[in-house]
Amino acid sequence: MGVLTEARQRAAHYAARNPLFAKVNEKHLEYFNNVLRKLCVAKQTPGRMLTDPDRIAAFNRDWMNQVEGECPVVLLPTSTQQVAAIVGYCQAEKIGIVPQGGNTGLVYGSSALHDEVILSLKEMNAEPVVSPETMSAEAEAGVTLEHLQEAAKARALLVPITMGSKGSAEIGGVVSTNAGGIHFARYGSMHANVLGLEVVTAQGEVLDMMSTLRKDNAGYDLKHLFIGSEGTLGVVTRASLKLYPFPRSTQLALFRLSTFKSVLELYHLAQEHLAECLSAFEVLDGESLILTPQRELPFTQTSKNDVFRAGQDFTSAYFCVLVETNGSDAGHDLEKLSRFVEAAEGSPFCASKGGLGGAFEPILSQSLAQTVQLWKVREEAPVRLASAGITYKFDVSFPLDKFYGIVEHVRELVYKDGKFDPEEVLVVGYGHFGDGNIHLNVVDRTRKQSDALDAVLFPAVYEFCAAHGGSISAEHGVGVQKKAYLGLSRKPEVIALMRSLKQIMDPNGILNPYKVLQ
Amino acid sequence: MGVLTEARQRAAHYAARNPLFAKVNEKHLEYFNNVLRKLCVAKQTPGRMLTDPDRIAAFNRDWMNQVEGECPVVLLPTSTQQVAAIVGYCQAEKIGIVPQGGNTGLVYGSSALHDEVILSLKEMNAEPVVSPETMSAEAEAGVTLEHLQEAAKARALLVPITMGSKGSAEIGGVVSTNAGGIHFARYGSMHANVLGLEVVTAQGEVLDMMSTLRKDNAGYDLKHLFIGSEGTLGVVTRASLKLYPFPRSTQLALFRLSTFKSVLELYHLAQEHLAECLSAFEVLDGESLILTPQRELPFTQTSKNDVFRAGQDFTSAYFCVLVETNGSDAGHDLEKLSRFVEAAEGSPFCASKGGLGGAFEPILSQSLAQTVQLWKVREEAPVRLASAGITYKFDVSFPLDKFYGIVEHVRELVYKDGKFDPEEVLVVGYGHFGDGNIHLNVVDRTRKQSDALDAVLFPAVYEFCAAHGGSISAEHGVGVQKKAYLGLSRKPEVIALMRSLKQIMDPNGILNPYKVLQ
Repeated sequence: MGVLTEARQRAAHYAARNPLFAKVNEKHLEYFNNVLRKLCVAKQTPGRMLTDPDRIAAFNRDWMNQVEGECPVVLLPTSTQQVAAIVGYCQAEKIGIVPQGGNTGLVYGSSALHDEVILSLKEMNAEPVVSPETMSAEAEAGVTLEHLQEAAKARALLVPITMGSKGSAEIGGVVSTNAGGIHFARYGSMHANVLGLEVVTAQGEVLDMMSTLRKDNAGYDLKHLFIGSEGTLGVVTRASLKLYPFPRSTQLALFRLSTFKSVLELYHLAQEHLAECLSAFEVLDGESLILTPQRELPFTQTSKNDVFRAGQDFTSAYFCVLVETNGSDAGHDLEKLSRFVEAAEGSPFCASKGGLGGAFEPILSQSLAQTVQLWKVREEAPVRLASAGITYKFDVSFPLDKFYGIVEHVRELVYKDGKFDPEEVLVVGYGHFGDGNIHLNVVDRTRKQSDALDAVLFPAVYEFCAAHGGSISAEHGVGVQKKAYLGLSRKPEVIALMRSLKQIMDPNGILNPYKVLQ
Repeated sequence: MGVLTEARQRAAHYAARNPLFAKVNEKHLEYFNNVLRKLCVAKQTPGRMLTDPDRIAAFNRDWMNQVEGECPVVLLPTSTQQVAAIVGYCQAEKIGIVPQGGNTGLVYGSSALHDEVILSLKEMNAEPVVSPETMSAEAEAGVTLEHLQEAAKARALLVPITMGSKGSAEIGGVVSTNAGGIHFARYGSMHANVLGLEVVTAQGEVLDMMSTLRKDNAGYDLKHLFIGSEGTLGVVTRASLKLYPFPRSTQLALFRLSTFKSVLELYHLAQEHLAECLSAFEVLDGESLILTPQRELPFTQTSKNDVFRAGQDFTSAYFCVLVETNGSDAGHDLEKLSRFVEAAEGSPFCASKGGLGGAFEPILSQSLAQTVQLWKVREEAPVRLASAGITYKFDVSFPLDKFYGIVEHVRELVYKDGKFDPEEVLVVGYGHFGDGNIHLNVVDRTRKQSDALDAVLFPAVYEFCAAHGGSISAEHGVGVQKKAYLGLSRKPEVIALMRSLKQIMDPNGILNPYKVLQ
C-alpha cells in the first residue's frame, strides 16, 4: 500500500476537504440507486451504482497513479435525465461530485481528492449519429473518440481531433477539457469544431444547445463556457461535432535535424510548400528517443548525456521531425511533399547533405506500413518514458521560436553543478510544434529523487513559461495540478471573472471541487 | 424629415427608454472631454468628442436607415485607457452607452435607440502588427477588415474572414458580432480564429487576454464570452487573429442550375472533389439577379414572376452557384476543379448537357479579370436590391437540405391570392450555402406597402426557422431587431443563463442597452 498511501496523501495535500460538503450516507445512496434504475428511456439499460471498493479502485486513481481519492460511490448513468437528477440532488444536499470521462488527463482533473462522488459518463455511449448530409456527428459523452472516428470513417468523414489516448478518451472529456492532439494545427480547437452541446448545469438543469447548424448567432454562444472548463461549470452529456471529408491520401516525412533553429526553418518551409495539406508537424528531441530500441529508428541514435554532465550546453543531440500531409489527391500531396523535401535539402540550413554533420536525413514514407512504423516512433516515446521511472509531465506552450527553450532551461537547472546525473534523471521534450505545444518530461529513473526534483522544478517550470510568453497549460487544462500557478498565465481581473462565473453557476461549489479555481 | 421621423419612431418603438438612465449633462461632457484629451499614450493623437448634430448624424443611423437614435454625443477614444475610463464612468453615472464599429450590421446592434452615448472605436486604428513568425495579427478595434487583409497580404498571409462590407467593417465589430462572410465554411467562425482579446468590461475594467498562442488551456477561455455577444458584455478594444498562408491560387467556377435539388448534389460533389481546396460555395436564386443588367451576366436571365402571380409554384426560375477554391498550387487546384466540373456534367442531375432544359452551364473562370467579374454578380446583387426599394433582409440559417424552403414559403405567403404583385414586391434568396446561411430579401419597390408586408412577414419568417431546425440569426446577431424572437432559437433555460451573465457583468445594463436580451 506504500504507493497508494503516497497518492492519497498527495491528493489530500492539494486541498483540504471542504467542511460544508455532506458525507454520502445511506439515504443518498438510496436516492442515487433509485434514479439510476428508473430514469431511463424505453429500451435503455438502467444506470449502475458501484460501492464495492475493488470496483471503485480504477475510478479513484488518475492515469499516472499520482493521486488517489476516497470516493465511496461511482455513479454510471445512462441518460441525461439521470445526470440531471443526480447533480441537482448533489447541489441540494451539498455533495461534491466529480464528472469523469476516459480518465486520461494529466492534471488530476477527473480525480476525487477526498470523498467526492464520481459521476462516470462511460455508459452514456449510445451509437453516435453520423450525418453526411450535415457533415456532423452527434455523440453522447461516453462514446470514445476512437469509436466516433470509426463511425465517421465508415461514412467517409473525419473527426477533426485525434490523440494517443483515443481508445479511452471520451467525447464528454474531450469537449470539457478542450483537448488538442496532433491535428489541432490543421482543424483547430474544440471551440472551432463543436456545433452543439447538451450540458447539465451544477443546478441539475439540462441546457439543450444541441445543433448541427454551422452559423448560428442567436444570442450569447454559451456552449463555449463549457468547452475547456473541465467539468466545473456543467457536465457535458452530448455534443455534435463538425466533420470533414476523410482524406484519401496521408503522406509522412521524417527528418533528423541537428539544431532547433533548423526545425523552425523547416516549419516555415512546410507552411509555404504544404499549406492546406499540412496536417501535423511533430518534433521529438534526441533524448526523448534514447529509450527507443535502435532497430525501431530509421536513423542513428545519439544522446548528449556527457555534454549535459559536463554542464557545457543543454540543447539536444538532434531533433526528429515528423511532417504529415492529408488531402484529397495522393498525387498532388506527394508532389507538394516532394517539393517541400527538395526545398529543405536546398535551403541554407542544410546547404548540402551532411553539411550539418550528416544530420539532415529526410525519409519519405513509401507505404502505409512504413507510415505506421514512423508514427510509432512518436507515439511510443511518451509511453516508454512514463514506464521508465517517476515521470513529471509538463504540458506547456510557447511562441514557436521559444518552443525548445524550456527544455534547455530545465536541463540547466537539473544538471548544473552535477545536481542530478543525466543517466538517472532524463529531461526531454517533444510535442506539437505547429501549436507551440511542448511536452517537457522529467523522468526520475531511480524513483527516489522526487523531493529534490520537486524543489528544482516547482514553480521554476511555470515561472519560465510566464517569463517567456508561454502558457502553463497547452492542452491538458489546469485540474488540480496547476491551479496554484493559474496566476502565471492569467491576469487577476480575468481570474476574478472566472470566479464570479463559477460562483453564480455553482454556488456551493459541488461540481468538480478543488479544480481549476477552488 | 419624413423618413427620419419614421426611423426615430421605429427606434423608440423597439424599447421604451430605461428611466433609470441618466441624461447626459454638462458635467458628463466635461468628464468625457477631459478623458479623451488626457488619457492617451505618448505620440498618440488625443481622442475626440462630437456634439454637433450634423457630425453626429451618420453615427446615429443604422446602415439601412431603418432606425435613428437621439444620441447627444459621440465619443471617439484613441486608447484602451480612455475606453475604460469612459465605460467605468458611465456605469457609475448610469449612462447608456453604445459601442460602434463600422456600423454595417443589419439588426441595429450598433444604433442608439434613445439618448445613449455612442462610443465609436473608429479611431483606435493604430497600424496592425502582422507576424509571419506566429502567423497572427494584432489589431485595435477600429482597424478595418480590409486594412488588416492588406497588411497581412503584404506578408503573404491571409485573414480568414472576408465580406462585402470589408472596407467599413472594423475588427472590434467583426469579433463582437462573430461575423461570418464567404470564407466561413473554409476557415470557421471568430471562435475558431481569435487567438487573443482585450476587452473593457461594463465595469470599466480592462481584461487583457491578448495572446498569439495557439493552444492555451489555462482556465476558462473567457474570450469566447465576448465573441458574438454584440458589445453587451464588454467592449472589444484589441484582438489577435490567426492567419493562414496566402493562397497562391484562386479559381472560380460558376454554374446555372435548374433546381434546388441539383444545387445540393453539386455541393456534395464539391466536397468530394475539392475537399481541402473549397473556399466558397455561394448560391443566388434567379430572382435575386433580375435587377442585374443582362450584359453583366454570363447566362440568360429569366424570372418566374408570371408563375408566382398565378400561384402555381414558388421555386426559383434557376439557381446561380459560385464555387471558389484556393490553395498553394494553381495546377493542382485547377485539376481538382476540372474534375469536379466533369463529375458534375456526368452526374445524374445533369445526365446530359441541356438535360435540364439547357440550364446547366458551368463556366470556369479563365482570368483574374473574369474572376472579379463573376464575383461581382454575387456582390452587387444585395446592393442593387437594397437600392430598389424598402428592403427587408432576413439573415437566417438552416440544415443544408432546407436551405431554400424559406424563400418558397415566404413567396407563398406574399403572392398567394394575389396579395402582392411579384413585380412590386420581390422575394429572393441568396447566401453562403456551405454554411446553410441564406439571406432572404423582401423588397417593396413601391415603398408603400410596409404595413401590409409587416403583417405577413412577422413573426412568420422566424417561426418558419424554428419549425424547420433553423436559426433566426446566422451571422448578423440579434441586436434590436430579433430580440423578440430569441426564444424561437434558444431554450428558456439557455436564455435565463444569458440573462444571469448579463446581470452580474453589467448590473445597470448600461452597455449596449435594449439589445439582444433587454
